[in-house]
Amino acid sequence: MAERIVIALGGNALGNNLAEQMRAVKHTAKAIADLIEAGLEVVISHGNGPQVGMINIAMGEMHKANPETSVIPMSVCVAMSQGYIGYDLQNALREELLDRNLQKAVVTLITQVQVNPEDEAFDHPTKPIGRFMTKEEAEELTKKGYTTVEDAGRGYRRVVASPKPIRIIEMDTIDTLLNAGQVVIAAGGGGIPVVARGHHLSGAGAVIDKDFASCELAKGIGADYFIILTAVEKVFINFKTPNEKALDILSVEEAKQYITEGHFAKGSMLPKMEAAVDFADSGPHRTSIITLLEKAKEGIAGKTGTRIVGTIDPISLDILSCEKKGCGDAYTH
Amino acid sequence: MAERIVIALGGNALGNNLAEQMRAVKHTAKAIADLIEAGLEVVISHGNGPQVGMINIAMGEMHKANPETSVIPMSVCVAMSQGYIGYDLQNALREELLDRNLQKAVVTLITQVQVNPEDEAFDHPTKPIGRFMTKEEAEELTKKGYTTVEDAGRGYRRVVASPKPIRIIEMDTIDTLLNAGQVVIAAGGGGIPVVARGHHLSGAGAVIDKDFASCELAKGIGADYFIILTAVEKVFINFKTPNEKALDILSVEEAKQYITEGHFAKGSMLPKMEAAVDFADSGPHRTSIITLLEKAKEGIAGKTGTRIVGTIDPISLDILSCEKKGCGDAYTH
Repeated sequence: MAERIVIALGGNALGNNLAEQMRAVKHTAKAIADLIEAGLEVVISHGNGPQVGMINIAMGEMHKANPETSVIPMSVCVAMSQGYIGYDLQNALREELLDRNLQKAVVTLITQVQVNPEDEAFDHPTKPIGRFMTKEEAEELTKKGYTTVEDAGRGYRRVVASPKPIRIIEMDTIDTLLNAGQVVIAAGGGGIPVVARGHHLSGAGAVIDKDFASCELAKGIGADYFIILTAVEKVFINFKTPNEKALDILSVEEAKQYITEGHFAKGSMLPKMEAAVDFADSGPHRTSIITLLEKAKEGIAGKTGTRIVGTIDPISLDILSCEKKGCGDAYTH
Repeated sequence: MAERIVIALGGNALGNNLAEQMRAVKHTAKAIADLIEAGLEVVISHGNGPQVGMINIAMGEMHKANPETSVIPMSVCVAMSQGYIGYDLQNALREELLDRNLQKAVVTLITQVQVNPEDEAFDHPTKPIGRFMTKEEAEELTKKGYTTVEDAGRGYRRVVASPKPIRIIEMDTIDTLLNAGQVVIAAGGGGIPVVARGHHLSGAGAVIDKDFASCELAKGIGADYFIILTAVEKVFINFKTPNEKALDILSVEEAKQYITEGHFAKGSMLPKMEAAVDFADSGPHRTSIITLLEKAKEGIAGKTGTRIVGTIDPISLDILSCEKKGCGDAYTH
């Protein structure tokens, strides 16, 4: 059976506006096509910060210009962003695969991710969304029950909760398509956050961290690899100090230790490391990798990136034994 | 093998704004669940007029408020509307099925539909989109290469082409999911219009008629039935004249004759009849039905609606023979 991978794309894989996204997805498609060409069954997830921010701002401007129009909730903005990004991404990837003579369907699924309404994140909203506001606008919003914060002297912004994902509603469909050899884009922007009341799902005023949602995706499809593509080739400890050190391979226990010691920045490398550990710890032969988009293929091959392993896989064993013997560059043999 | 159906939902199945849509989809879900419960394999397509209009207006307001933001093309607005509507619809249908103890995955696919850049529709844009503008705004837009028209004294609007669909890009995925017993929402708003240049697909400044796109969908999956749900229970000839007559069942040839005679309103019943005829004429045992959302199940059973048949199916034969014998109400036996 083919090995399965979830690829979590960071912001730099998509750019910050329409023109940037059109360029970025071409580049991103090449990196993903490399993995498909290598024979992996691929699910792609992605962030949506700038895109959902744009949609949120546009909907706000519409409502400001004409107060009779609908106020569009966050969950609907996320659904729109999945359509927007998925369209560009499936298109670029389809083209790259055809250019390589690979006939594979690529498709985006509108994906809902269930969260727990009792998640304590709802008591402490932290994720800023939408445009900057004046103090008066923020006070107006607060009166309507929203939470706003002052953002580093740049004005006020609405903040929403970032609860943990507990279930991906469309998992059966993802699995069916993977089994059919198709490439799936799912859980964009961390998924549309929903809470369950009996059979009913309601949109939640929240955004789900895309790395956590991607981890659920990876566990759900029984992935062999979970790769988080971001702005650094490797994860560092003691970052920006004289003792800083790039991490090549570490066990779940070592990774947990570094997390406890506070080596990773909140809202940046910390959730990535937590998600990576969660996946590697979730079953045998599960490997998480954090690296650059451009290094995805080399990362899977064990030639670069930071690798977090539960049960040690053969490539990792090779690297580890080499490191212990001190045979220099572990990545060239 | 189970019979397959494409259900094309009209505007009244979705409402005109967020609150209306949330209510409408509940009602719509019941009508669709009836057909799924009856054992049909279902693909759902839908219009997106009010929704893509809203998104288009919001994006316009954003750009007006801050000209540094992206100008969002029509194809991207359609992609967003597929996410928005699909999310609500898959959610409501999932709930209705679970309430009936039916465990079936329901999923929305971001769907691209290829059009021919040589389609003569591009020479005569007719489909109004977005908000009303002043004469000055319209002139500004015209200078940028867009087409605008004066709309019945209410102001100016941008118009785009409505080319014919020639291929649904994600057809393989739709087929795979149907074979797996899942319910698929696809080609929302007529699909994201794209033109092919080699392996590359580019978004087109156009909107595809949702009935024509749904017809392609029905042909592509080898459907047995294509049902267009709209605001009337039956199609009329000589509409609003003393000779008006509701149509129960007609052959492809009769339907074509009525079309030629000009019985059906352009941009309203005409494209529905054309799409219905196209499907019924595309292979043996293919039946098109036009009726009300609430009458979908009865329509399939031959109890109401307007039925267009190529090869005559048994139910139709029954109705026809009864009509010829003059046995009164053909729909009660």
